[in-house]
Amino acid sequence: MSQARAATGTFFLVVGPSGAGKDTLIDGARRALASASYVFARRVITRPAGAPGEDHEAETPEGFAAREAAGEFLITWQAHGLHYGLPAELLSALACGRHVVANGSRATVDELGKRVPGLVVVEISAPPEVLAQRIAGRGREDHAQILARLQRQVDPIPPGILRQRVSNDSDAAAGIERFLSVLRDPVAVCVAHEAPADTGEEAVAFAPSAQWPAGTRLRLRSASGRLVDVRVHGWEAQASTQDRTWQEPWLALSPALMRKLDMQPGATVQALRIQPAGSRHFFTRKLRGDALKSHEYQAILQDAVDGRYNDTELTAWLVETTRSLDATETLALAEARSRIARRIVWDEPMVVDKHSLGGVPGSRITPIVVPIVAAYGLAMPKASSGAITSAAGTADTMALLAEVELSPEAVQRCVKQARACIAWNGRLNHSVIDDVMNRITRPYGLETAAWSVASILSKKVTAGVTHLVIDVPYGPYAKQDSLQQAQALCALFEQVGAGLGIQVRALATDGSRPIGRGIGPALEVRDIRQVLACDPDAPQDLREKALLFAGHILAFDPGVGDAEAGRRLATELLDSGAARRAMERIIEVQGPPRRLAQPSALSMTVEAQQDGVVGEIDGWAIAGLARDAGAPEFPEAGVDLLCRPGQPVRAGQALYRLHLGSARHKELVSARMRAGASLTVPVIA
Amino acid sequence: MSQARAATGTFFLVVGPSGAGKDTLIDGARRALASASYVFARRVITRPAGAPGEDHEAETPEGFAAREAAGEFLITWQAHGLHYGLPAELLSALACGRHVVANGSRATVDELGKRVPGLVVVEISAPPEVLAQRIAGRGREDHAQILARLQRQVDPIPPGILRQRVSNDSDAAAGIERFLSVLRDPVAVCVAHEAPADTGEEAVAFAPSAQWPAGTRLRLRSASGRLVDVRVHGWEAQASTQDRTWQEPWLALSPALMRKLDMQPGATVQALRIQPAGSRHFFTRKLRGDALKSHEYQAILQDAVDGRYNDTELTAWLVETTRSLDATETLALAEARSRIARRIVWDEPMVVDKHSLGGVPGSRITPIVVPIVAAYGLAMPKASSGAITSAAGTADTMALLAEVELSPEAVQRCVKQARACIAWNGRLNHSVIDDVMNRITRPYGLETAAWSVASILSKKVTAGVTHLVIDVPYGPYAKQDSLQQAQALCALFEQVGAGLGIQVRALATDGSRPIGRGIGPALEVRDIRQVLACDPDAPQDLREKALLFAGHILAFDPGVGDAEAGRRLATELLDSGAARRAMERIIEVQGPPRRLAQPSALSMTVEAQQDGVVGEIDGWAIAGLARDAGAPEFPEAGVDLLCRPGQPVRAGQALYRLHLGSARHKELVSARMRAGASLTVPVIA
Repeated sequence: MSQARAATGTFFLVVGPSGAGKDTLIDGARRALASASYVFARRVITRPAGAPGEDHEAETPEGFAAREAAGEFLITWQAHGLHYGLPAELLSALACGRHVVANGSRATVDELGKRVPGLVVVEISAPPEVLAQRIAGRGREDHAQILARLQRQVDPIPPGILRQRVSNDSDAAAGIERFLSVLRDPVAVCVAHEAPADTGEEAVAFAPSAQWPAGTRLRLRSASGRLVDVRVHGWEAQASTQDRTWQEPWLALSPALMRKLDMQPGATVQALRIQPAGSRHFFTRKLRGDALKSHEYQAILQDAVDGRYNDTELTAWLVETTRSLDATETLALAEARSRIARRIVWDEPMVVDKHSLGGVPGSRITPIVVPIVAAYGLAMPKASSGAITSAAGTADTMALLAEVELSPEAVQRCVKQARACIAWNGRLNHSVIDDVMNRITRPYGLETAAWSVASILSKKVTAGVTHLVIDVPYGPYAKQDSLQQAQALCALFEQVGAGLGIQVRALATDGSRPIGRGIGPALEVRDIRQVLACDPDAPQDLREKALLFAGHILAFDPGVGDAEAGRRLATELLDSGAARRAMERIIEVQGPPRRLAQPSALSMTVEAQQDGVVGEIDGWAIAGLARDAGAPEFPEAGVDLLCRPGQPVRAGQALYRLHLGSARHKELVSARMRAGASLTVPVIA
Repeated sequence: MSQARAATGTFFLVVGPSGAGKDTLIDGARRALASASYVFARRVITRPAGAPGEDHEAETPEGFAAREAAGEFLITWQAHGLHYGLPAELLSALACGRHVVANGSRATVDELGKRVPGLVVVEISAPPEVLAQRIAGRGREDHAQILARLQRQVDPIPPGILRQRVSNDSDAAAGIERFLSVLRDPVAVCVAHEAPADTGEEAVAFAPSAQWPAGTRLRLRSASGRLVDVRVHGWEAQASTQDRTWQEPWLALSPALMRKLDMQPGATVQALRIQPAGSRHFFTRKLRGDALKSHEYQAILQDAVDGRYNDTELTAWLVETTRSLDATETLALAEARSRIARRIVWDEPMVVDKHSLGGVPGSRITPIVVPIVAAYGLAMPKASSGAITSAAGTADTMALLAEVELSPEAVQRCVKQARACIAWNGRLNHSVIDDVMNRITRPYGLETAAWSVASILSKKVTAGVTHLVIDVPYGPYAKQDSLQQAQALCALFEQVGAGLGIQVRALATDGSRPIGRGIGPALEVRDIRQVLACDPDAPQDLREKALLFAGHILAFDPGVGDAEAGRRLATELLDSGAARRAMERIIEVQGPPRRLAQPSALSMTVEAQQDGVVGEIDGWAIAGLARDAGAPEFPEAGVDLLCRPGQPVRAGQALYRLHLGSARHKELVSARMRAGASLTVPVIA
């Protein structure tokens, strides 16, 4: 099992914005680590020697090109009109087990990862006000230039790369100390043995205690670039192996962890010690009840994503934070979140969007609102979710009309060619922070309205949205119980949106009853087609709600006037067929759907047992029936509502029809009916 | 390593108050477990057959005595004038691997634990209102009798016994189901092998996955009665052992865990699966922001103590709870805590006490207040802490005058013979709940004032205290920043105290400066002796503060009048020598101290560097100096303050004297002085 390996050094690629102090930290580290173990790369730059800044090797553009052609560089890049190169000899230093420290560029990370065996990207950062002060101190740029520089979004580090963050937010000595603690922890390349262990939900790696003390937290990276954070438990190989001697460094991983890392026993795995959380001071202040600022939230969230807090700590922090978020702190949190992700830049004066808190069965207005807005000409790159707890998400329904798994490039193309798209958000703006948050808050059912406001709005900021309408339904089965509660949340959305520079209009809407007729992808497609075709039989409540929201979006255009004028304009665009044609264009540009579906022919009709009036319909129960029928996995399944609350009905009259995904679903639904589910649409005598 | 063991059944001893529904649950379980694996014990009782209640074997008192003498009983006890016995044959059933279920008495637990190999005490409980209703339903007792019965405190289960709790708070079917889930989890007697593991702070046991799924939580009990809760990680013995086959059931424990359990590899350990928390519904409601009632808090706290919540869950709950405790919930929490512990019953009309939130160096008034109160004749069994973060606790100081490690019986004797005592509280009212709480809140520095109110007052309730004065110091170095904050806390103490049936007088006191002169055990003893001896050189602030608190305590006696009258009376008792004589009597009854100490002769005097006025003294810094000098480990060490804030001094005049525990302490203090600690008592020119 054991295998001979040459000692391998770690390549520390140092990146960070201007003013973060990369040169200062690298100089400081060079002095402190003046040993044979560390090599500080001298860069070749097409800039005259003697210029201020780092000590580089000057080269002419021609000389640089010649050396590049001769293979003298490990990697090269361009910035500010200059060529930069790192010498190829650094590879030999790594092979001898020496560690390399190089001032580099984010743009080279992906390529470097393939060329050096143990890459660690070290991101140097500082709060915006510190950056601004340091840049201003150089006296080379004016205030406007500095602001523009700070607002520039940086390339994110590609996934699957080991990274360390160093906050250089106080004096040079403190920054150098933090930087050194990162450099002193190179990557350990370990043979991964199989531990005959089952550690359940817990990510544990077993290692000799002499190698790492028990409790050490490590980020593991397999050859295929999978990353998993683990906690170390000490284990003595001699005592636990039968006939083999494991050579250090080794780790023993459970079969489940091997699968997570997509690796086999005997392969090597890179292990990087997770640094202590630099934001602990802010973390503690929050737990003591203090309000935090945006950069403090950002530091905590980045440490959380970097695995520097354990679940217990994160839980404590989240309980306190979700409880104490007022408007000011919600804005601070949203700003922090929007800074962590990369912002999409649109070449558009306005980018509009619509968001619904959901929970109202059938309320599928997005595929009507988007083509109306597109027909008017505003850019509306809509990213929608699939079903989480409901019977269908907008993405599930749209997937029957067009391709919805769009890349960021495809989204840009759609907006250019059709002014809009309706894409699945799964590939677009996934949030690691939300993953961490949901894992912790869901089991406890924490109240997270303000957290959601920050999450939703920060994602809109990074999506480049400038104008946004939000649907906040209220009612006994909606997420907000009362109009008052919904209005308070609307006010929070608008206030935080304004702070983030987005114009937000949030509307509290009646969520007490289903909207439209169909609940389930194929049935919803039928309703949407009817509305777009101006079919007189189309569900009028769906049409009206779509026109209301489209009107508010159109009213963002100062030329349109108020929301009522917007509504009139939206009605014209719908009734003239312009919206229908815009939808056809959107579908054409997104591409054909992967799957077509009609409402299932295997159906079951539920009739009134007595004369009377239709009572209140339990939204959760009706969505539950649609799921039992097979939606959304079976897009042809769902519930077709044939009555409305308050409508008089006679005994034997059809109340709703269930379209069933399969015979198995028919059985399940029949069992539910026997258990009383037929009363989901009650008839009051 | 492996050893042959006979199969061993578990002895489930069912206990619980009247009205908890023991008979109903046992009957229900008997019907459900009608198999050869379970034996339901039929008790022998000196009560005629055919009486209502359980099916027992009737016996005459003479017959019972004869059978007892003949060794026919496994165990016997008396209650309500009747003799009860469990037949000795139950032992053979256990030896055959059958499990025994017996309705029993708490009084037998200790003895039974020695006689049966795998004892589990099953405590059936129900909220007081349910108990009252059920007892009333029997119609055998009137309301007053029922109340008296419910207030009766039960014997606690001795430590080192495996126990399960079953809440029978809803209908019989639900109660029986919970009871059955406990009975279906008998004790597993496992061979404990040594795992070559180091799991750091985490208590992990390795076991074959087929035996327990990974993640199972177990309470382990070693032969010496040590209990440790662990989490199971799966491990396959075949893969990890060299030349031995481990026979199931086995557990592999790290050396650290073996030490905690005080056991050797190869010995057997009892393992009992920890049941899911029955209070989870209340737990979740609290996290959603609801207020909880007393019995809901009680259920959560008991589950926490039983290891049914993990640290992450407890952290989430504590963050939310400490944040949301208003007066009503603080009372509910205090009631819950006071019900979990056993209440001490005094044959006294009034039992008075004094509590200080501490933090003011030198404020050692307890050893003056207690003898004044004792001289007047009120019962004052004072339990005091040792130093936690300060240079001395009352117990550290009192330990130089008398024995302070008193058993509960010794405390009772002291009160009888001397009206009072000053004991170390470590052996008296240790709280497992506080252990759990402190482990979690300390690292996060959670604000826990209301939690402390509940903790302090509930301990007073269980100590049998009826009247209590509380010292709440405020000031820049005290726990409360301002008078206003201190007064709010005083109001909370008084309000919650009233709810618990204790008369509480809480006083906000000036904590901005040290009280008395000495800081450190021996120096404080000197001050106390001076005050008790009415030495004109005694520190007057210490004397005055002691008289104030003694006065408030004496004023609890309606015959004394108001606090001012109490103060006058206290002054008389001090000046007449009555208090000094009372102290001599207390010391005589508590017994001689284990150690004597005079202020250390190895000393260092710090002088004013300039003419001026003494400024504000940093209480934390001066206490820190006293600790650096060696206090409280070296009781002869400490700081002797030779000036007061506001006092004019001349250059060269002594400000304070350090008494040093050893040469090592002298070095440490000298280093501190060079680092600027000499300015702890500032002189403003």
